[in-house]
Amino acid sequence: MSLSLLEQLIESLRVLPGVGQKSAQRMAYHLLEREREGGQRLADVLAEAMQRIGHCSLCRDFSEQSLCAICASASRDRQQLCVVESPADRLAIEHATGYRGLYYVLQGRLSPLDGIGPRELGLDRLAERLSQGEVEELIIATNATVEGEATAHYLGQLARQHRVRPSRLTQGMPLGGELEYVDRGTLSYAFGSRSEMPE
Amino acid sequence: MSLSLLEQLIESLRVLPGVGQKSAQRMAYHLLEREREGGQRLADVLAEAMQRIGHCSLCRDFSEQSLCAICASASRDRQQLCVVESPADRLAIEHATGYRGLYYVLQGRLSPLDGIGPRELGLDRLAERLSQGEVEELIIATNATVEGEATAHYLGQLARQHRVRPSRLTQGMPLGGELEYVDRGTLSYAFGSRSEMPE
Repeated sequence: MSLSLLEQLIESLRVLPGVGQKSAQRMAYHLLEREREGGQRLADVLAEAMQRIGHCSLCRDFSEQSLCAICASASRDRQQLCVVESPADRLAIEHATGYRGLYYVLQGRLSPLDGIGPRELGLDRLAERLSQGEVEELIIATNATVEGEATAHYLGQLARQHRVRPSRLTQGMPLGGELEYVDRGTLSYAFGSRSEMPE
Repeated sequence: MSLSLLEQLIESLRVLPGVGQKSAQRMAYHLLEREREGGQRLADVLAEAMQRIGHCSLCRDFSEQSLCAICASASRDRQQLCVVESPADRLAIEHATGYRGLYYVLQGRLSPLDGIGPRELGLDRLAERLSQGEVEELIIATNATVEGEATAHYLGQLARQHRVRPSRLTQGMPLGGELEYVDRGTLSYAFGSRSEMPE
């Protein structure tokens, strides 16, 4: 017996991360009962997004144009380049900081066991860009995970090869963080790297 | 400045219940990075569902045909009619029990303060159906909430007016429920209505 349209809808919604059978069912009923217009609009935007959103040819972030809004902007500082693992990381920095330079989105991290090497992350194109001499500082904002650190190490060497100054986000206690709840690694690092308080 | 397609996608995803800014963002990135095909399929099914799924003319459940699969089935017992508040309730009974009768979906519950009376729940059509003499038992499976009970009371009277036998789901301790965690109302009711154990 073929699935009814409602069953197909529930099944299709499960493609969303963190959505199981029960949530998908609740979503389908919610849309049908109360949000037909919103559901229709979601269908339209989703179809267009899946087809039209590609990658920026310069920074590899998601973009519907061949050059994303940030890379195309004339008001950004082209001497600073910030490398992040994912578009979500780029967005977080853009929202939280006053950074006015450009970005480079790896869309991943070095992970030899999964077959993800420098080429898969587009590091050959990054090297080419660094060699052109416009970039002065490479801000390495990969995650503070083992793979992120390995990637940061590789990027640092790449930067020095092209006489670009590499920098890395400061590690330590989160602002507002309570000692009791900070993970051991962070606490140990922050304790060991303590500095004298200014007067 | 107009929103980018990605921003529109994130905004549109928030129409889903329980999905805020952060989840919507995560969903959008997940679809773009790993599930373009699934996203495209979701868009197609969603568009079709929003346009084509209406209500069954007999039981008011969601259906793409004018008669839903259950109402149209020749193998269901037409002497039993089970009244539920929502399509999700109908699905729960269908999955959990071996019930072979028909359903009537109120798509709500009596709630005079919100302007939801018998007419809004289609109870005039239910009354007409009961008057035709085919239905012998009206199984009232509205929720065990205050409004659900009020609705059940009304439905019980309606059934008796048409000489149909009304029945209500048994209330008491959930199977596998632990005394300590059962709510006070249920515990009090189950304690008061205790019955002698069979030998």
